[in-house]
This record gives sequence, structure tokens and C-alpha cells, in this order.
Amino acid sequence: MSKVGIIMGSTSDLPVMQEAVDILKGFDIEVEVDIVSAHRTPEKLFDYGKNAHERGFKVIIAGAGGAAHLPGMIASLSPLPVIGVPVKSRNSIDGWDSVLSILQMPGGVPVATVALDGAKNAGILAAQIIGAADKCVLDKILVYKEGLKQKVIQGAEEMKKK
Amino acid sequence: MSKVGIIMGSTSDLPVMQEAVDILKGFDIEVEVDIVSAHRTPEKLFDYGKNAHERGFKVIIAGAGGAAHLPGMIASLSPLPVIGVPVKSRNSIDGWDSVLSILQMPGGVPVATVALDGAKNAGILAAQIIGAADKCVLDKILVYKEGLKQKVIQGAEEMKKK
Amino acid sequence: MSKVGIIMGSTSDLPVMQEAVDILKGFDIEVEVDIVSAHRTPEKLFDYGKNAHERGFKVIIAGAGGAAHLPGMIASLSPLPVIGVPVKSRNSIDGWDSVLSILQMPGGVPVATVALDGAKNAGILAAQIIGAADKCVLDKILVYKEGLKQKVIQGAEEMKKK
Amino acid sequence: MSKVGIIMGSTSDLPVMQEAVDILKGFDIEVEVDIVSAHRTPEKLFDYGKNAHERGFKVIIAGAGGAAHLPGMIASLSPLPVIGVPVKSRNSIDGWDSVLSILQMPGGVPVATVALDGAKNAGILAAQIIGAADKCVLDKILVYKEGLKQKVIQGAEEMKKK
Amino acid sequence: MSKVGIIMGSTSDLPVMQEAVDILKGFDIEVEVDIVSAHRTPEKLFDYGKNAHERGFKVIIAGAGGAAHLPGMIASLSPLPVIGVPVKSRNSIDGWDSVLSILQMPGGVPVATVALDGAKNAGILAAQIIGAADKCVLDKILVYKEGLKQKVIQGAEEMKKK
Amino acid sequence: MSKVGIIMGSTSDLPVMQEAVDILKGFDIEVEVDIVSAHRTPEKLFDYGKNAHERGFKVIIAGAGGAAHLPGMIASLSPLPVIGVPVKSRNSIDGWDSVLSILQMPGGVPVATVALDGAKNAGILAAQIIGAADKCVLDKILVYKEGLKQKVIQGAEEMKKK
Amino acid sequence: MSKVGIIMGSTSDLPVMQEAVDILKGFDIEVEVDIVSAHRTPEKLFDYGKNAHERGFKVIIAGAGGAAHLPGMIASLSPLPVIGVPVKSRNSIDGWDSVLSILQMPGGVPVATVALDGAKNAGILAAQIIGAADKCVLDKILVYKEGLKQKVIQGAEEMKKK
Amino acid sequence: MSKVGIIMGSTSDLPVMQEAVDILKGFDIEVEVDIVSAHRTPEKLFDYGKNAHERGFKVIIAGAGGAAHLPGMIASLSPLPVIGVPVKSRNSIDGWDSVLSILQMPGGVPVATVALDGAKNAGILAAQIIGAADKCVLDKILVYKEGLKQKVIQGAEEMKKK
Repeated sequence: MSKVGIIMGSTSDLPVMQEAVDILKGFDIEVEVDIVSAHRTPEKLFDYGKNAHERGFKVIIAGAGGAAHLPGMIASLSPLPVIGVPVKSRNSIDGWDSVLSILQMPGGVPVATVALDGAKNAGILAAQIIGAADKCVLDKILVYKEGLKQKVIQGAEEMKKK
Repeated sequence: MSKVGIIMGSTSDLPVMQEAVDILKGFDIEVEVDIVSAHRTPEKLFDYGKNAHERGFKVIIAGAGGAAHLPGMIASLSPLPVIGVPVKSRNSIDGWDSVLSILQMPGGVPVATVALDGAKNAGILAAQIIGAADKCVLDKILVYKEGLKQKVIQGAEEMKKK
Repeated sequence: MSKVGIIMGSTSDLPVMQEAVDILKGFDIEVEVDIVSAHRTPEKLFDYGKNAHERGFKVIIAGAGGAAHLPGMIASLSPLPVIGVPVKSRNSIDGWDSVLSILQMPGGVPVATVALDGAKNAGILAAQIIGAADKCVLDKILVYKEGLKQKVIQGAEEMKKK
Repeated sequence: MSKVGIIMGSTSDLPVMQEAVDILKGFDIEVEVDIVSAHRTPEKLFDYGKNAHERGFKVIIAGAGGAAHLPGMIASLSPLPVIGVPVKSRNSIDGWDSVLSILQMPGGVPVATVALDGAKNAGILAAQIIGAADKCVLDKILVYKEGLKQKVIQGAEEMKKK
Repeated sequence: MSKVGIIMGSTSDLPVMQEAVDILKGFDIEVEVDIVSAHRTPEKLFDYGKNAHERGFKVIIAGAGGAAHLPGMIASLSPLPVIGVPVKSRNSIDGWDSVLSILQMPGGVPVATVALDGAKNAGILAAQIIGAADKCVLDKILVYKEGLKQKVIQGAEEMKKK
Repeated sequence: MSKVGIIMGSTSDLPVMQEAVDILKGFDIEVEVDIVSAHRTPEKLFDYGKNAHERGFKVIIAGAGGAAHLPGMIASLSPLPVIGVPVKSRNSIDGWDSVLSILQMPGGVPVATVALDGAKNAGILAAQIIGAADKCVLDKILVYKEGLKQKVIQGAEEMKKK
Repeated sequence: MSKVGIIMGSTSDLPVMQEAVDILKGFDIEVEVDIVSAHRTPEKLFDYGKNAHERGFKVIIAGAGGAAHLPGMIASLSPLPVIGVPVKSRNSIDGWDSVLSILQMPGGVPVATVALDGAKNAGILAAQIIGAADKCVLDKILVYKEGLKQKVIQGAEEMKKK
Repeated sequence: MSKVGIIMGSTSDLPVMQEAVDILKGFDIEVEVDIVSAHRTPEKLFDYGKNAHERGFKVIIAGAGGAAHLPGMIASLSPLPVIGVPVKSRNSIDGWDSVLSILQMPGGVPVATVALDGAKNAGILAAQIIGAADKCVLDKILVYKEGLKQKVIQGAEEMKKK
């Protein structure tokens, strides 16, 4: 069964990153959550990145704030697709620091970057990546997208009633 | 066999996007290249997005510049993972416009954004997404990463000789 | 009679967009408000854009936040003038994302962009567009502008009294 | 017959603004081009803005660079819809100055802002504004948009042949 | 006797601009405060700018927010030195809009720009301009600067005691 | 007779700063040009700032690039009005560094900041400051402004002939 | 014994700068705290910078906000390594002003810049600089880094329990 | 003897980083140059960072562009002071990406950041760090600073002769 690794640089990132956990559980995709700090636990970062593809992970979601090196370093160490979530941390310069230090990876080592604090989308993207080869998950994505649509249509109808 | 769709808003984006084509061919992954303009061929955009997952594509790479709506609109229409390449087009405000209009997607509809003009990384990421379920492609990624390493080590040695 | 279509990507944009509704009603111009999400209801977007000019609309006002594709996609589909309102949504990077993804449209497909959260001005602009061919509305604009002036002059007098 | 006024702060803006002239002539819409500097010919600015709607203009296109006050001041003086073109002038800070000083108008006085150096789109937008009340011009816009589409489709076919 | 004109685009700017009034009164320099809106009272703007130097003003301080055209338009109309105060208004994009639309004036028409919401410094600068030709005011500036110094030294001493 | 001190951090700033020299000479105002580096000749900076008002200067124009401390430090040391010219130096981050490090002075110590590379406007502003108390110079400013106007009107006429 | 000088432009910077004091005391390194304002006490700045290396200081930490000239001016005057802390002061433009006016020093006069409001890191960096030549302090840094690691590992374990 | 390690992510960074080598050689400080890529040679990064302080290095200078993780990761692994040089690489977004991803390090792991492409200042800062404990190097810094001063004074004299 496919498994998604969700890591973040600090427990303070958990409120943002929880959205990725929740959405993936909604798709019945197994997740494993851990704290891995590029700057404070480099050995753990190294082990995590080196071994993730042999531990059954298909995708890794990594969230970090400020000078956010966790997603890029995991992408350096692992052959798996890595999704980066820029977190708007305390002392961040409006989020630009985390966005740019995750997005602007050099040629050869991509990070699939999502929006600032966009952990929910990171979860959906991980499901889509698994769905690329798993018809059952792809169908769930189609259902999910239909649900998004219905919610907007319903909201429009309610607004018109008022 | 897995297939990657590579689309862009204009033929003027081709010099940038060609790097995605080349890297995927290097991984022996089939690609199909097309011009789809969100703003000038909306019907084609619609057909492409709606049908991509039934035409054998596993991943879509979409490149666009300025107010770059192509990646996000394809992500709106397709359940597949969509990789967005911000292209620094003529009249762009230093690339910020394409970066932000691709990256900052609302909750529910992710685009896997890579660096400005980062089509090469878009190709690698597409291969990694396929490799998540295809051991053969995963192994090629490992070999590719080993090649990156060797090239740096060789460069370091040559520099030291001088 | 002239009619203005006011659409937005989400009901959460309504508090901002209501100012456009109010100002147009003040000019006795008919408005029709709807929720159309480029990313969640692409079919509705398509229908709306394709048919707006045949449904009696003269101008469309479209508000959206983040990677704001609604105004540009409507402009892609419709021959009518489209006014875009960048909305400073939650998780926005200080509004830059919505401003740039609405403003920086490629050559051929303009969006008349107003200030961040500037729905009031979008309404006035729509009235001015109708007033370009409708002397009665033009006169109301002149009266409105005179009202703006009087309010400033009155404010200046009150300030001087203190 | 409808007439569009095209003004700019300096003759050095003409190479950019000429695109607005050309596109409007292509739609058989009469244009009158003039140099009006907010900062060097304030009296001319004043006369132009005060009288434009009585001289047969339906729309005014105003282009300016740096601290670009021309579009906003014309919008202050005239009840007509004013389209602002931010010009990336010499010494501009990457165009941000002209974009922000045209876009961020206060409530009550809108300027329909187009992309940086986007004079072509300003011309199309002016035609769309006239087309809102003139079926003949609206039809030309539809033809123009069809032409944009065909050019992209043709470009896609030529690319595939190579 | 020298007189400084202090104007602003809206009564909502008064809390910021009051600091300029207070500091100038502290230097015993006469001030006259008024509301002049470039966008809502262009005729008043015109009269004010044209006549200021004949009404006894030596310096004009103009504060405005967003697309802030008041300082630059006064500088266009008057031969006097004009000090511009960028005000961080509601809906401002972090103040960048007012800063850039005041600072980036074209060659020929300067505005002496001070920091965002820097009305206090605008007042001091006005006093310095008067002091350039008025020994008595210059001496007051020297005293004021000595006061700034003593306050810092005193603060340092108090901090060390703790 | 009034005298303006023009200083800059490096001889490499001279091509930009020369415009201030030229414009002031055109107004028959005496200038004295010097190189004063805040970071490399702090003692000279100190002497210059401390004594300028006793050496007959009425205004100081200081230009610098990057982390531009020269204008602010002179303003710290001198009671005279100080005009700061942000210079877009090599390795500058698009000029933002010099603009912000000159403009954003703390309360108590103003610098009259002009546009990026705006030395010409610095010269005009210096003349306006002198003109605030010197009717003869004020009249020259009025003549200069009339010249600006005539040049625009002439340019407009030539453009219309073509 | 090594001593670190910690200075700041205003007592209002103390809440931020206190973190540098605390961390250095934790490393048993002597600190001396003072208020030195580049703009209000230039003579004190001068004396401080000129004499610091002869008063037993090994490193100077200087914090300032807005147009932050204190770190760069101390670096101009002293041969010691100077660490600059950009402080996000009131009226700052999101911290960009202090960051750029500290970071972008010209060639010849470096300032070791840390993150916005990063006084804690300034303290650690000062300890590392002393540790470069003092094995005892270096060992304390190693212990400190081990502590950071253990805290993350412990946090990860606690999170997993929940 | 003190030794400085100078590393960079790619041989393409060498033209920028060479200035650090040259300035340190001018101070008779031993340097060792190497290529260490955080993203392509993570094992080498790991070894380098873990062992640098036992290999005789006193300071490490690390230069990198784009999403520049090298300086921060070395700072994560080593107890030595790490100087980060943001390099404006190809495809960089005007250098902002490298600046922010080096500067904005989280609390606990500082990087001493210098200006964009500021390798020369990195070299001087490294010398100052060594000079903090080595009187001989400190004296060389004093001589170097005197040289900077004389060059400015000489330049000023030559300028005045013209």
C-alpha cells in the first residue's frame, strides 16, 4: 500500500501541516508524520532522505518556514517526488523567505512547491501523484473535485436566496 | 506505457520548455508536446484538461508567463498531477507575475510549481512522479542523481588542479 | 437596459465585492451576482464567459484572490470588457499574488484591473463604461464626482473649525 | 462616431503607446493622440480632462512611467472611463513604480489598469468598451478573438511538423 | 514670517499628518492645514498649487496614501519645495504604493520624500529648509538635535541602572 | 551667496551626480563637489557634516548606492536640509537597497529623498530650497518650469505633424 | 577574557536585542550593553567604533531598524567583526528597510547580517567567533547544538504519542 | 596557523567567490577552496560540515545561488562561524532567492550573511574573525582600512583637479 511521509522542521509547523494529514486520511492514504529539522537534526534528515524510498514511501511532503532548507535537502537525498510547503513562520519576511528558498531549486533537484501555508494542497497533490498509477485513488480525486464543484454551486444558490 | 503531456501557452515558450522534453526523453519517457493557450484557445484548454487522464497521460507539465493561468486551469479540469513552470516572458515584472499566478493556487486545486524557467526540473519531477510507482524509472532517477554527484566531484577536482 | 454581471470565486469574497453591487445600484444599473470559481466550477466558468454578451450583460466584474484566474479566463471567453478586482484573500502574499495574476494579462486579452480590494471602483468603472454610450448614466457620474468633491470640501471646513 | 483619446506623458512613451493606436485603427475606431504631461503641462492636463467627454471621446487611454500620475489625474477630471498603461521608463524600479501609482487609486476614482507596457491591451479594452454599446464593434472583437485562436492553433500545427 | 502649508488627501490622513503640525509649532513656525484631494477636488488642487508661493508659503508638506498623486501634482504646479509624506492607508499594499508614487518623480519636478508615515520628519525638514536662510530657525534645529542626543544618553543611563 | 555641497560615496557615482552639478550651475548657484565615503572616510564624513553649516552651505546633496548611509549620516551631523540621491550601484538589488536605506530615516533626522538616480531633481530641489527665501532664484524656477512646459508642447506639435 | 559589545539605536530595540544578551550569558561570555544612535548620538557612535577594539571587545553586535546605519557605521570605524541585527521597527516597510540597509554594505566594509529580529542568532554567532580561537567556547557551541537536536527529537516523540 | 575554508555550490560560482580567495591571500591567511553542492553532493556536504572544525578551519565561507542551502546546512553541521555569500545565479529572481534563503536562518543556527555577490566582504569578515583573537591580523585589518581611506581621499583630489 502507498504511504506518504509528512515531515516538518518544528512542532510549531504542525497546525499548518495537519491539513495535509487530514486530506490524505480522507483519501484513505497511509501517512507517517515526523519532525525532521534540517538545521537542528541533520543526521536524522540524512537518514530520512536516504532511506525514504526503501521504507515504502511514494511521496514526501516537507513543510518549513524562513530559510526553509528541509524540502530541498530531502529532494537532494531522495529519488522520490518531494512536495514543499512554505510555512509563514514567526519572523518570516511576509513568507517570501520560505517561498523562495523552497521554490528556486537549482536544475537537477526539483521540489514540487505549493502555495504559502498550502498544506492541504500538498496532501491533494500527493494523492494525485499516487493516483497517477492507481486508478482507485484517481477515482477518489475525481469524486473530490466533484465535491468542490457542488459546494460552490450550493453556495451560489444560497447566496441568491438571500 | 507512461506518457507525459507538455503544454505551453505560446510557441515563444518553447526554448524554455524544451528542457523538459529533453530530460524526459533521456529517461525514455514518452512525451507529447502541444500549444494550449488559456487565454486564446480556451476550448482547447477545456478539452485537453478534461480528457488528459483518459488519453494515457500520467502527468501534465504546463509552462506559461505573465498572468500564467494555464497550469492552474489544467489543474482545475484534470485529476492528474500538474506541474507548473513559470516562464519569464517579455514584459514580465521580473518573473514575479508568473511565479505567483502559478504558485498561489487556492485550497483544493494544487499545482506543483518549480523554479522560474525551471523546465528541466519539471521534467525530472514528472519522472519522479512516474518513478513513485515504477521501479525501473526510480532506478533511472537514482542513476541520474549519481551522475549529478560525479559531475560536481569531477568539477571540484579539475578546479583544484588549476 | 444595461446589465452588469458581478462574479467572484468564492462566497468569502462577497464582503469585498458587495461594494460593487451597492455602487451600481446607486446608479440604478441592474446587476446580477453569481459565484463562479475558475478552479472548482470550470464548466460554469466556460458557460458564463461564452454566453455573457448574449445574455444582456454590457460589462463583467470579476473578483478573486491568490492565483486569481477568474477575471482573465472570463476575458478569454467573452468579448465584453472585464473588470478584475484583486481580493486580498487568506494566505495571500500581501495581495501581490492576486494583483499580478489579474493585471499581467498577455497581449490580446485585457482585464481592466482596479486596486486591491477595490470593488467600489470596479462598480464606478462599470458605470463609466455604460456611461460612455449612455448620456443619462454619464450625467450620474458627473453628479457622483461632484458629491465626492463636496464631501472633501465639507470635511476640510469641519477640520478647520476644530 | 466613437473616438478614443490616447495621451502620454512624454514623446519617449510613444514607441510603447503606438500599439494602442495601431490596434484601434485595426478596429476602424478613430483615435486622437496627444502629449499631456501631468507634471510639466498641468494646465493642458486640466483642460484635457475637463473637456474630453464634450469633445466626443468615449474612452481615454493614458500611458505614463515612474510616479505615473497622468491616468489618475485624468480620471479625477473626467467622467469617462480611463485606461492606464504603466510604462517601464528609464530609472523605473523594474516597473513597480508605474504599476502601483496607476493601479492603487482611492475609492471613487477608478483607473482601468492594464499590464506593464500593455498598450496593445489598452487599445483592445477601449474597443471592448465601445463594443459594449455598439454591436458592430463587438462583432469585430469576436472576429479578433477568433483570429488569436487560429494563430495559436496554426502555431501548434507548425511546431508538431518539426 | 515664514509659513508652511500642510495638506493631505483626506481627513483620514490627519492622525499621521498631525505630527508635522506639532513639530513645526514647536519651532514657532506658522502652519496652515487644509484638505486637498488630487482625485476628488482637482480644482482646489490647481488653485492651491498655482498660488501657494504668492500666499506667503515657503514650503508645502503634502501627505497622501495609495496611488498618492497630491505631492507630485503640487510640485508640478508650484515653484516651492514640496515635501511628500507617503501615508500607509487602508488597502495600501504595505505602503509600497504611496512610497513609489511619491518618490519616483520624473526629471524636472522633484518631491522631497520622507519615510512611510514620516510626517514628523516632514515637519523637521520644512524647518530646516526655512532654517537654511533664517539663522534663528537654524539655531532651533541645533537645539532640537541636542535634545535628541540628550534623550538617547539619558535612556542609555537608565537602561544601565536596571 | 548661497552654496550647495554635493557629495557622493565614490567617484563611480559621479556620472549620476553630475546632473545635480549641471542643473545648479544652470541656476547660477555655486556648488562644491567632494567625495565623502561614510564607510571608508568616516572622519571626513564627521568633519564635513559637523561644519557644513558654518562653511556657507545652505543645502547638502548626498548620493550613495547599496547600503547608502552617507545622506543619513550627514543629516545626523548637520542642521542643514540634506537631499539624498539613491544611486543604483553595481551589485545593488535593483536599487531597493539604496532607496530604502536613504528614505526610511527614523523620526528626528529627515533626509529629503529623490527618485533612484534622480540627481537632476536633487539639484532642482536644492534650488527650490534656496528659492524659498531668495526671490531671484524662485523666479528662475518659474522660468525653468515654463521651459519644461514649452518643450512638451513643442514635442506634442512635432509628433502631430508626423 | 573575551567581551562582546551589544549596542542598539534605541531603547525600543531592547526587547529584541535582549535575546543576544541572554544567549551570550548562557555561554558565560561577558557582554556590555549600550544605546548608541547613529542618527542622534553620532559622536558617541564615533567614539564607540574607534575605541572598541582597544577596550577588550572581540565582537560587536549592533541592532537597528528602518534606515539602519548603526551596524555599517560601526563596521566603518572598527576593525572588529560587526554583527548586524535588522530590527522590524514601527513604520518599517515589513522589515525590508532594515534588512537591506544592513546587508548591502559596499566592498571593503562587511557587516555579518543575521535574520530579521534575529538577535538570538547574533549572540550565537558572536560565541562562534570567539570559539574560533577558544576551544572551551567551541565545546560549548557543540553542546548547545546537541541540545537543539535533543529538543527536536523529544518534540518528535511527544508528537507521535498523541 | 588559521585556515579558512571557502566552498561553493558550483564551479560557476567561482568568478564571484574568487574575490574572497584573493582578499584572504592578501592578508596572508591560508585558504582551501572546494566545490560542495548541498543538492548534488549531500554526503560531501555532510562530511565537510561535520569535520571542518577538526581539520584546522577557523571560519567557513560558503557561496551559493537560487535556493541557496549550502551556507545554512554547513552552519547546521559545524560549530564554526559560517559566512554566507548570496550569489546572483542564472534564473535567480533578481538575487532575492539567494539572499533570503541564506539570511533568514531559524533561531539556533546563524549564518553571517554578506551582500549579494559580496565575496570580497566575506573574505574581509573572515579575516576580522581571525583578527578578533590574533593581534597580527587585526593590525593588517587596520592597515587595510587605512588603505581604503587613502584611496578615497586620493580619488577626491584627482576629481577636484579636473
